[in-house]
Amino acid sequence: MPPTDLDGLSEFSLIARIVARLGEAAARDVVVPPGDDAAAWRVPAGAGAVATLDVLTEGTHWRRDTMALSDAGWRAVAANVSDLAAMGADPAYLLVGLSLGPDVTMDDLDALTVGMAESCRAHHVRVAGGDVVRGATTGISIAAYGHARPAGEQHEGGAFALLRRDGARPGDRLAVSGTPGAAAAGLEVILAGRAEEAGAEPLVRAHRRPRARVAVGQAAAAAGLRCAIDISDGLLQDLGHVARASDVGIEVALAALPLHQAAVDFVGAEHAVDLALGGGEDFELALCGPRDVLKHLDTPDVPVTLIGRVVAEHPGEVVVWDDDGEAYEPPSRGWDHLRA
Amino acid sequence: MPPTDLDGLSEFSLIARIVARLGEAAARDVVVPPGDDAAAWRVPAGAGAVATLDVLTEGTHWRRDTMALSDAGWRAVAANVSDLAAMGADPAYLLVGLSLGPDVTMDDLDALTVGMAESCRAHHVRVAGGDVVRGATTGISIAAYGHARPAGEQHEGGAFALLRRDGARPGDRLAVSGTPGAAAAGLEVILAGRAEEAGAEPLVRAHRRPRARVAVGQAAAAAGLRCAIDISDGLLQDLGHVARASDVGIEVALAALPLHQAAVDFVGAEHAVDLALGGGEDFELALCGPRDVLKHLDTPDVPVTLIGRVVAEHPGEVVVWDDDGEAYEPPSRGWDHLRA
Repeated sequence: MPPTDLDGLSEFSLIARIVARLGEAAARDVVVPPGDDAAAWRVPAGAGAVATLDVLTEGTHWRRDTMALSDAGWRAVAANVSDLAAMGADPAYLLVGLSLGPDVTMDDLDALTVGMAESCRAHHVRVAGGDVVRGATTGISIAAYGHARPAGEQHEGGAFALLRRDGARPGDRLAVSGTPGAAAAGLEVILAGRAEEAGAEPLVRAHRRPRARVAVGQAAAAAGLRCAIDISDGLLQDLGHVARASDVGIEVALAALPLHQAAVDFVGAEHAVDLALGGGEDFELALCGPRDVLKHLDTPDVPVTLIGRVVAEHPGEVVVWDDDGEAYEPPSRGWDHLRA
Repeated sequence: MPPTDLDGLSEFSLIARIVARLGEAAARDVVVPPGDDAAAWRVPAGAGAVATLDVLTEGTHWRRDTMALSDAGWRAVAANVSDLAAMGADPAYLLVGLSLGPDVTMDDLDALTVGMAESCRAHHVRVAGGDVVRGATTGISIAAYGHARPAGEQHEGGAFALLRRDGARPGDRLAVSGTPGAAAAGLEVILAGRAEEAGAEPLVRAHRRPRARVAVGQAAAAAGLRCAIDISDGLLQDLGHVARASDVGIEVALAALPLHQAAVDFVGAEHAVDLALGGGEDFELALCGPRDVLKHLDTPDVPVTLIGRVVAEHPGEVVVWDDDGEAYEPPSRGWDHLRA
């Protein structure tokens, strides 16, 4: 591997370059800003801390031929924010760890940083610190921190308004935000060389520039709901976690799935259903709770659609019913980062 | 690369295995324990949040021929806790991201996990969540989260009792915890095949099983000190960060450096000095502040030694004076993770 223009740079020049490129996405006004041994910030009175960490590696989580590094940066931020959104938390700060492979150039690093900065602005989070190393491969580790609001009168049990995997109860209805399957359809469109075709843009954007559903999660937590999950590993697989953690059965009505019209147009209705059930990559939320609460969540920009229900039968299992009342099994229920 | 016994395991079985091996080092009693989209915990009333993230990669930060994976796990935890210690914070929770290379076996993963668990217990921190992926190389990303105490009467400025790089003032004295250079001497002893020799054990342990100086940082913050830094990249290099951030000069008295007797015995006094100044790998703290406060820090198990002073002259520069009043320049001032 020939050396790149990054090789001459010291760790400290590189960090200065990254912080400069982050612009207002760098949290310069916190108690201790990036550059010290650790970052420090104030916690709102009464708030709980909510934190998550994701590791994304080139080749497994993104490929250079389907996504620019700026898109990988955007997605890495969105993926972490989505985990906080699925808790109903208020995302605040990120710590970003970059491992830069031997082929990474200064332009690559700038593109990655700018993509992260754009995603930070879109998601109202800022980078408070991090680490950068050289490695055999390129990887992005992001830890995201947010705040949980104290529980109000509408919340049963627990000190904080949080959405958990183990909060589903028989009798709850199941809803999903957005149009699951759009991101996976976008990837198929890109791989088929059809990304530039008319009508493909919303699918391509769903794959490369997904938005985490922070407002949906916060509205759900504020309304007293107790159960949500991010469905980025695939709707059925992630619902399986809810079913096992809550010891309930979950039933999904195939006909109720809110498909993206462009996905239907590009990959066909049947395949669009399979992608919605197990395609993964969607930073949407699945929510469980009373029908009336789910129907009236205040999320003006994002549709939330009822797609099923929580039952006492077949605990731990997720079943999809088709229009004829037959159980339907898609080719995949989701993906496993270890096997991908 | 032939497949290993890890290859058949799903992400979720692997996480279950890791959490089981962590034992009491897994934070099962927090508000939301490992296994949900994110972890959640309570924040002590009035406390500030302090957080750091480090990325360690095999080949750059550790090598299989000088360190077992259990030691790499120990060190990864210690490195992050050390960053919080350098802020005077109270370390609480870790998020652990593992990227497992193709050669990693189940035994390797268990060793790594057990080493992390031992280090967690020694440092009184617990794992609240994380992520595990397969990658082309093995890497450990850890985000550590701790709490800063509200500032007391002895603190000037700032709402929290925190130690910062920009807190050094002319007239301050400079102190260091422990015996810098011991970890680098330990690595040299290992590389020379002398790890089993009589007297080598403290040096080998300093390299493979270092302890972060949490009690030193907390005592310094409680005593009203405002400036400290972790010297794991090399004493002079890290003091350079303090000198630039504080816009002061720093003078180190070579004769005052507290060397480990075993380091002197194994590598000789002259080389031991060079390792203390620029060897890196020590999770010790350098502290700046009034002489009387530094002299009377309550750290019964760890020596804190005065080694120099902070001056208004040569701002941004760190100078070492030898016994003859001559400036001394060691072969290295520290190491750069990007160039290593």
